[in-house]
Amino acid sequence: MSNPFHVTVWGEFRHEKKNPRVAEIYPQGMHESIAAFLRGPDIEVRTATLDEPEHGLTESVLDKTDVLVWWGHMAHGDVNDEIVERAKRRVLEGMGLVVLHSGHYAKLFKALMGTTCSLKWREANDKERVWNVMPAHPIAQGIGEYFEIPAEEMYGEPFGIPAPDELIFISWFTGGEVFRSGCTWYRGNGRIFYFRPGHETYPTYHHPQVQRVILNAVDWARPSVRIPDACPNSAPLEALPHDPEAHSHSAVGYK
Amino acid sequence: MSNPFHVTVWGEFRHEKKNPRVAEIYPQGMHESIAAFLRGPDIEVRTATLDEPEHGLTESVLDKTDVLVWWGHMAHGDVNDEIVERAKRRVLEGMGLVVLHSGHYAKLFKALMGTTCSLKWREANDKERVWNVMPAHPIAQGIGEYFEIPAEEMYGEPFGIPAPDELIFISWFTGGEVFRSGCTWYRGNGRIFYFRPGHETYPTYHHPQVQRVILNAVDWARPSVRIPDACPNSAPLEALPHDPEAHSHSAVGYK
Amino acid sequence: MSNPFHVTVWGEFRHEKKNPRVAEIYPQGMHESIAAFLRGPDIEVRTATLDEPEHGLTESVLDKTDVLVWWGHMAHGDVNDEIVERAKRRVLEGMGLVVLHSGHYAKLFKALMGTTCSLKWREANDKERVWNVMPAHPIAQGIGEYFEIPAEEMYGEPFGIPAPDELIFISWFTGGEVFRSGCTWYRGNGRIFYFRPGHETYPTYHHPQVQRVILNAVDWARPSVRIPDACPNSAPLEALPHDPEAHSHSAVGYK
Amino acid sequence: MSNPFHVTVWGEFRHEKKNPRVAEIYPQGMHESIAAFLRGPDIEVRTATLDEPEHGLTESVLDKTDVLVWWGHMAHGDVNDEIVERAKRRVLEGMGLVVLHSGHYAKLFKALMGTTCSLKWREANDKERVWNVMPAHPIAQGIGEYFEIPAEEMYGEPFGIPAPDELIFISWFTGGEVFRSGCTWYRGNGRIFYFRPGHETYPTYHHPQVQRVILNAVDWARPSVRIPDACPNSAPLEALPHDPEAHSHSAVGYK
Repeated sequence: MSNPFHVTVWGEFRHEKKNPRVAEIYPQGMHESIAAFLRGPDIEVRTATLDEPEHGLTESVLDKTDVLVWWGHMAHGDVNDEIVERAKRRVLEGMGLVVLHSGHYAKLFKALMGTTCSLKWREANDKERVWNVMPAHPIAQGIGEYFEIPAEEMYGEPFGIPAPDELIFISWFTGGEVFRSGCTWYRGNGRIFYFRPGHETYPTYHHPQVQRVILNAVDWARPSVRIPDACPNSAPLEALPHDPEAHSHSAVGYK
Repeated sequence: MSNPFHVTVWGEFRHEKKNPRVAEIYPQGMHESIAAFLRGPDIEVRTATLDEPEHGLTESVLDKTDVLVWWGHMAHGDVNDEIVERAKRRVLEGMGLVVLHSGHYAKLFKALMGTTCSLKWREANDKERVWNVMPAHPIAQGIGEYFEIPAEEMYGEPFGIPAPDELIFISWFTGGEVFRSGCTWYRGNGRIFYFRPGHETYPTYHHPQVQRVILNAVDWARPSVRIPDACPNSAPLEALPHDPEAHSHSAVGYK
Repeated sequence: MSNPFHVTVWGEFRHEKKNPRVAEIYPQGMHESIAAFLRGPDIEVRTATLDEPEHGLTESVLDKTDVLVWWGHMAHGDVNDEIVERAKRRVLEGMGLVVLHSGHYAKLFKALMGTTCSLKWREANDKERVWNVMPAHPIAQGIGEYFEIPAEEMYGEPFGIPAPDELIFISWFTGGEVFRSGCTWYRGNGRIFYFRPGHETYPTYHHPQVQRVILNAVDWARPSVRIPDACPNSAPLEALPHDPEAHSHSAVGYK
Repeated sequence: MSNPFHVTVWGEFRHEKKNPRVAEIYPQGMHESIAAFLRGPDIEVRTATLDEPEHGLTESVLDKTDVLVWWGHMAHGDVNDEIVERAKRRVLEGMGLVVLHSGHYAKLFKALMGTTCSLKWREANDKERVWNVMPAHPIAQGIGEYFEIPAEEMYGEPFGIPAPDELIFISWFTGGEVFRSGCTWYRGNGRIFYFRPGHETYPTYHHPQVQRVILNAVDWARPSVRIPDACPNSAPLEALPHDPEAHSHSAVGYK
């Protein structure tokens, strides 16, 4: 696949307008901070936010999106169901999806998982240590054995997800919890990665290893194919030796 | 878990009223034929159909349902979204679900899978040979190496599902196709089994090994727990700090 | 399957003879303590130890063993390769296997996993909190959200295992580590469960929830079939329409 | 990872010397035919065979091998256990492994799987249709919906393998069988791919889509890391206790 590839970072962009602490950490919005560290010669990045028309996710934007990154929290319910369905269809066709932190409760993520996506949580400045349990995975490259985030919101098990196809990171929290923090799923022709860190009141997206994981993830999630959905009536491929008339409905019976 | 347990067989019950061939094979409806071979001293079975109020799936019926069996085909679109959501919630809490044949396209199954659930198909009296690839699985007990269905609709790959947690059966068709015909998924606290055979114009649910698989499946899908969804704010569990000297060997004991 | 079923608890039984602390906690040996809490009207339990002839695992003992429980540590190298091969064959035929703590490095477990089974470790009286991440699993019944072991040896990631078929428990340790503590694998027709806790210098096998997990596990691991290995030459099952003479070797070519 | 990368194709190279039919199809040996279609500007390929010293798999050859391709059949028992152990260690450290056809019974593959790796088989010129059930997988690129091999040995289920981490191809055979023909496993830091086709008396390795799959597979199996085995005693990582007030929002920053 030729470079550059195209990433769209979607941000809810509400906390930044209401909470001065968040605005201080992410002056241009969380989506712009994320976009900034993803941009490079190989990656073209645009952003989209909730309050734009169609949440910034028009068909034409999605046509040019190889990987969608999603951060949302307080306004999941404001995301239009039609846009959710549109983005879900794209993922199943092949578009990559990287879901961050409280995006575990985004309609899009829940629709793709089919489960509750619930978890435990606590805002108490826990230290988080993110352990790398699959060091050969492309998303874990450059991460080492583990990394620490000095203060974060805690997310704890049980996490209401289907068993991940690949479990890459498990987090440890000071307060006594664990969490499956880095998980992949193959859904349709698309690749999905969920990554736990990133509460809006902490500077987590300025953390170099958090950035490295997200950068690895968008590269890993790039599509290799785009296949529209179909449920075709198919002619027999084999010259049937089996006589389709042989089993009349009256002739077949098990009683 | 004490017996008997409770199974609800849901049938669309439309083909039987419109197509005399189907009515001839299943005079009381497909759901009643399925219910009949499931009934026994350990299993209490009720049925429910599309055209009953709330499709027969009231909260009180679901309260008493350990495992729901689902057959639908021509009228998936007529199933009310609220009832789908209700049944999905029950599965995630712990209720078992057995989805049959064209139920691959039921709203309930698609919502739990998160994928297209599309497939290839052909009505041409193909012979189907169902291979048992996981002979130690509870659902495969008594099935042997394989069994044959002399005439069935063909379903072919690619099947638009998440990779099954357990792949039990793979079908071979005369016309040259293969299909993952028996698949399990763990979703939330519930167990889901999809089983391919059962086109309405064939007497497939009178086939002894098809019956045996479905009987095994409802037994396997019985819930061990029922846990309502929650996303709790949690106090820190750890009384900090940990004193490595605090637990002398003499001080620790469970007797 | 009719009860009672038969469990053999295998213990290395060396630490108990050399270390008075271990002998004090497990006066009859660790294997006898484990056997004692497993015994019941439905379960007949025998024990076997390293220094018996054939390590107590004769063909006739294995003939009567539905589930083998394994604890070993300091003397993995003294286990005879032939006995390892014998027990491995039984697991692949259908016998259940429950591997405890330092049994992660047993020849039998490593041969069934195919991987290094390495891990991090530390003897420092860490508190361990064992989180239940799959509450609907039969092995997790009665365990609740988590349980604590006040002092244990630490085992940390990365754990050199194939991705478990089911991940049931994840441990948190005071010192900052996490570990996949309860894992299942389906291998051949047998079921395998690895359970982390149980360092010999702690009274871990007197802990009520540790006992409950092991009791659940032997019940879960009971065989449904016993199928000897075979690699059969098979006659065609289908009346071949395909003419086996049609493709003479000279006639088939891709260049 | 910089190109070119290094592939070693290992061939048993016995059939070619004994059976004129095989020698006619593969005049330089099967390993040389496979090596020939893999060679390119990005891939340096060497070959190694059973009757060379150390079977051609010296430590120095393995030092320079990113991906090992393995074909063996009649002489699995002649492969030295020490060389098997050496190659297995390399896979677990990160080296890729592509196992072809009757290599399902190679000591190396069986040691990595931990299972019997048995299957059904028949030499009867069956037609094989290889279905692509995971079209977005890198190994399936360029393959399309399915491809046909006009005459091959049949391999049938049950195949005695651990459930594959990814199931990419399922084969249909004229005689009525199915087989999981393209399977991946992640083991340690290495990637393993098994690919069914390739009986020595057919020109299967001249088939363009078979070649494409193997070429895709060696690219997919390239290592991202090489990590030697270790089981370290670890100091506690956490400086205890954690002060929930210690990380004020102004104090935490990564820029």
